Amino acid sequence: MLPATPLSSPPAFKTIAVIGKYMAAGIEQSLSDLASFLVKRGHAIVFESETANNVALPGLTKMTPEEIGQHADVAIVVGGDGTMLGIARQLARFGVPLVGINQGRLGFMTDIPQESMFNVLAEMLNGNLESEQRTLLEGSVLRDGQQIFHALAFNDVVVARGATTGMAELKVEVDGRFMYNQRSDGLIVATPTGSTAYALSAGGPLLHPSLSGLALVPIAPHALSNRPIIVPDSSTIEIEIMGGRDISANFDMQSLASLQHHDRIVIRRSAYTITFLHPQGWSYYDTLREKLHWNEYPSVTGKLK
Amino acid sequence: MLPATPLSSPPAFKTIAVIGKYMAAGIEQSLSDLASFLVKRGHAIVFESETANNVALPGLTKMTPEEIGQHADVAIVVGGDGTMLGIARQLARFGVPLVGINQGRLGFMTDIPQESMFNVLAEMLNGNLESEQRTLLEGSVLRDGQQIFHALAFNDVVVARGATTGMAELKVEVDGRFMYNQRSDGLIVATPTGSTAYALSAGGPLLHPSLSGLALVPIAPHALSNRPIIVPDSSTIEIEIMGGRDISANFDMQSLASLQHHDRIVIRRSAYTITFLHPQGWSYYDTLREKLHWNEYPSVTGKLK
Amino acid sequence: MLPATPLSSPPAFKTIAVIGKYMAAGIEQSLSDLASFLVKRGHAIVFESETANNVALPGLTKMTPEEIGQHADVAIVVGGDGTMLGIARQLARFGVPLVGINQGRLGFMTDIPQESMFNVLAEMLNGNLESEQRTLLEGSVLRDGQQIFHALAFNDVVVARGATTGMAELKVEVDGRFMYNQRSDGLIVATPTGSTAYALSAGGPLLHPSLSGLALVPIAPHALSNRPIIVPDSSTIEIEIMGGRDISANFDMQSLASLQHHDRIVIRRSAYTITFLHPQGWSYYDTLREKLHWNEYPSVTGKLK
Amino acid sequence: MLPATPLSSPPAFKTIAVIGKYMAAGIEQSLSDLASFLVKRGHAIVFESETANNVALPGLTKMTPEEIGQHADVAIVVGGDGTMLGIARQLARFGVPLVGINQGRLGFMTDIPQESMFNVLAEMLNGNLESEQRTLLEGSVLRDGQQIFHALAFNDVVVARGATTGMAELKVEVDGRFMYNQRSDGLIVATPTGSTAYALSAGGPLLHPSLSGLALVPIAPHALSNRPIIVPDSSTIEIEIMGGRDISANFDMQSLASLQHHDRIVIRRSAYTITFLHPQGWSYYDTLREKLHWNEYPSVTGKLK
Repeated sequence: MLPATPLSSPPAFKTIAVIGKYMAAGIEQSLSDLASFLVKRGHAIVFESETANNVALPGLTKMTPEEIGQHADVAIVVGGDGTMLGIARQLARFGVPLVGINQGRLGFMTDIPQESMFNVLAEMLNGNLESEQRTLLEGSVLRDGQQIFHALAFNDVVVARGATTGMAELKVEVDGRFMYNQRSDGLIVATPTGSTAYALSAGGPLLHPSLSGLALVPIAPHALSNRPIIVPDSSTIEIEIMGGRDISANFDMQSLASLQHHDRIVIRRSAYTITFLHPQGWSYYDTLREKLHWNEYPSVTGKLK
Repeated sequence: MLPATPLSSPPAFKTIAVIGKYMAAGIEQSLSDLASFLVKRGHAIVFESETANNVALPGLTKMTPEEIGQHADVAIVVGGDGTMLGIARQLARFGVPLVGINQGRLGFMTDIPQESMFNVLAEMLNGNLESEQRTLLEGSVLRDGQQIFHALAFNDVVVARGATTGMAELKVEVDGRFMYNQRSDGLIVATPTGSTAYALSAGGPLLHPSLSGLALVPIAPHALSNRPIIVPDSSTIEIEIMGGRDISANFDMQSLASLQHHDRIVIRRSAYTITFLHPQGWSYYDTLREKLHWNEYPSVTGKLK
Repeated sequence: MLPATPLSSPPAFKTIAVIGKYMAAGIEQSLSDLASFLVKRGHAIVFESETANNVALPGLTKMTPEEIGQHADVAIVVGGDGTMLGIARQLARFGVPLVGINQGRLGFMTDIPQESMFNVLAEMLNGNLESEQRTLLEGSVLRDGQQIFHALAFNDVVVARGATTGMAELKVEVDGRFMYNQRSDGLIVATPTGSTAYALSAGGPLLHPSLSGLALVPIAPHALSNRPIIVPDSSTIEIEIMGGRDISANFDMQSLASLQHHDRIVIRRSAYTITFLHPQGWSYYDTLREKLHWNEYPSVTGKLK
Repeated sequence: MLPATPLSSPPAFKTIAVIGKYMAAGIEQSLSDLASFLVKRGHAIVFESETANNVALPGLTKMTPEEIGQHADVAIVVGGDGTMLGIARQLARFGVPLVGINQGRLGFMTDIPQESMFNVLAEMLNGNLESEQRTLLEGSVLRDGQQIFHALAFNDVVVARGATTGMAELKVEVDGRFMYNQRSDGLIVATPTGSTAYALSAGGPLLHPSLSGLALVPIAPHALSNRPIIVPDSSTIEIEIMGGRDISANFDMQSLASLQHHDRIVIRRSAYTITFLHPQGWSYYDTLREKLHWNEYPSVTGKLK
């Protein structure tokens, strides 16, 4: 993955798509203001169809995510990480870069505060920005050798047991080599982006977004010495259901339930990547510190003692 | 809880109940041999009804767990920890002490190897034994103030989310004082006995069986600083469902599914306790070391490097 | 340990000792104000000798900690947990109850904010308070059977390797029974009070202050399955140095360095306890939530996502 | 890093260096047998000088590690991971590939059992082998802008506090960007090779040897949300001592003690790499499973319950 770097020639950004969190209170005003701001600067604006339902703007152009993918030069997402996660997967195959405005709390992916969005966007649309590429997973579920499900995942693929059943028994192979049979509540295969989501709650490490790696993080594993392992993102990971009931495979929380014994979930890096645009000087570590309450100065709160 | 101590006057053990793992391969011979051994020593033997179906012994006396509770002076359990767990809950209110013979691997609760059972039992039945008492939980589920479920748990009570849903949101109070609102996969309330079961996989500590404490162990908690906490076992723990779907309450893996928001699970120490009998010189730490692969001597296997 | 309970008859508190953090900026004014407040209420006030050096008050009575122990009915400590830790050990054998005023951040032990101290103290000195007793450890270091060091510890006893040496090898026995040989950076034996200090950083669980237990928490243990274990606080814990260089024993960070192979550190609960006084309605969990950034409401900061 | 791949044209291996664990009991016979075996096959054999002191062989050619680096085509190391670690650093700049024979327990790096070494080596020396490259770190310590120490590290660079002092305060920057100020016992910067050593004991994840990443693993960090982070191995990591006493920097346990405040430790991937040769079909995961007691089949020992 390329580290965040200033683009050599500022992109044109003729057509800008705007996507907002569905149903979010107070989002209409934000989106209208944003549209006005962008129109004044001379950009062509299109609204994602569902988003447009929240906004009463005359002469609004609506587009499906697919149309946005074909026509927009950049997409500005207003909302939280969940909103970004959804649209990012939909736009992945078109390569449209994404800008994230957080409406409320700082997100890991929506890193521009709404309060300062006009100043920040003005700078960025002038070409003063950094670009960063994120890995995406593609996963298939195979039954008797036939693919019965296929999906992209930006955060993670999770294979997990049912809530009221005994442990899942999973056989894991990486690049055709046997890794382990694992008994646990489940196994998370996370991208660097997903390393700050469920994988982190389950005890996984943080992966820098530009690391070419994937994290395999067991959930409540039976073997006490079973630790998270990070493999190159060129790896093909195969998980076979060996035991347990009500096993499901979850792709960014989109679920395929009732897997059967010997179903196989095959996970690899997608050929697509997600491009995030950030203001110049953006730092991933700033976000981490703020989100994870790492305090820079030991004397302030957030530390023990 | 009392530490393991030699009984001052050896118990009589006139009537001994024998309970075996259902359907276990090769168990019939073990049970027959055990019965013969005990009869020769002059004890009256009764078989738990289901166990008796596995054994072809003339003149066999069968009893339900309830009858065993009323008539037996001690119960010998042949099998694994799962077998012990089930019968221990059923006999809890009768106070019948339990002896565990492991059929195969050493168990945390079935600590006498089958190979040496005759020698060990002979010593124990002569009164050379140690007695240890274990805590039991009782839990209720309340809906709109009405109790809709009640059960004992020897290992743990687990409140957990459904497999394909978002996080559970649980509000926890201890002795009427607010502890936290927790977002997680679920929460485990474990006895010392349960501290070596699911709670351990979820990252909980070990609790010595004679500790008067209960462990609250979150499963994949959202807040990174949310650590297991050990409270006195005189505490009343109340868990209220605040959010999430398909939440279930599980008492030693016996489940009540489809809990609703504002259902409350109330957990406290049962008035009953479980009494385990061990050979003299028995040590809990020996079992821990062997089960957890703690090696006494650093140069042997089981350690890193 | 007794849970916090209202005292049946309000204590007299005739003589109140005041102890302040040494050298703390701005402490002089706080201490003067506190003294005036207490004198006006009719209490006799004494200052701990070192504290008195920070305060220019006419007619100030100075006392050593020992004299305070003999004469004071209560000691008010202004500062942080470190200040409290030091004076608590010194006053332990006299049974003087302690009140903690935090000067700055909330402490685990200094739980009354300075801003509201007059109102809170007025209530408490009128007898509207709760009392809580905390466990204290006593530890000895034995060499060739002779005691070469003895100290109290309120937080923990830590046996640890030197910074630039290989692992420590420690043999641990509890109540004369072998627990394990451990290779690690060291081992922490913590009281419930100490469970929120170093033990927590090393991965230990929280112990409620009224739990009758001690936590044994390994620091970076070699065996991956080596987990913290909680034992009853009636236990005698013996740690023998089996290998490693520059091993030290640390009692609340007071260190005895250069231990030798086969030196033994013997740790047990002290016959003394520390009594903390709190305002009515005080809750340990409130302190935990605030100090550990557990957020009550999932939508606010401090959580992931 | 390249994954293990069969070499296209089998290397000649004219001159083979043999390195043995110093002072190891019974090593003389192993080394003699190995030498005879290799000589018979027509290879020229040289012994590392110190190793040669353990072996009474007529006509033995001795070489320093530097000479080995200049003249040998491959080095066979007999011993444990410690022996391999030392020689690997010394030979790094010469690019001599390494073969590891374990004398006793399986090592993470010495993966060929001594019992079968003749068969395995015969195959490998015929060209039936896999080659794998491992990352090496180089670290410098800067004081007032001057480099006062420089070393290679194959496992890790550890910056840690003294044993009897308070926490270290470290400021960490990655590629010139501020990551965090950390209070802890210390910080481990580990290669994938080092991820199975000290970093693992401190709670770090496993990194596959072919992952282009480095792990930053805090030791007993004060902030509970401070998790291990994996950064690309193209990163430059700078650690500045901000507080604490007796801080040391340790490069594979070679220590520079008594660091001062504002000393900076600068760590980056070395231009050198280590090449390991393995028998065909070798799998890193097999080693992990065996060393970490991950059991392939849930019904055997090494699991809980």
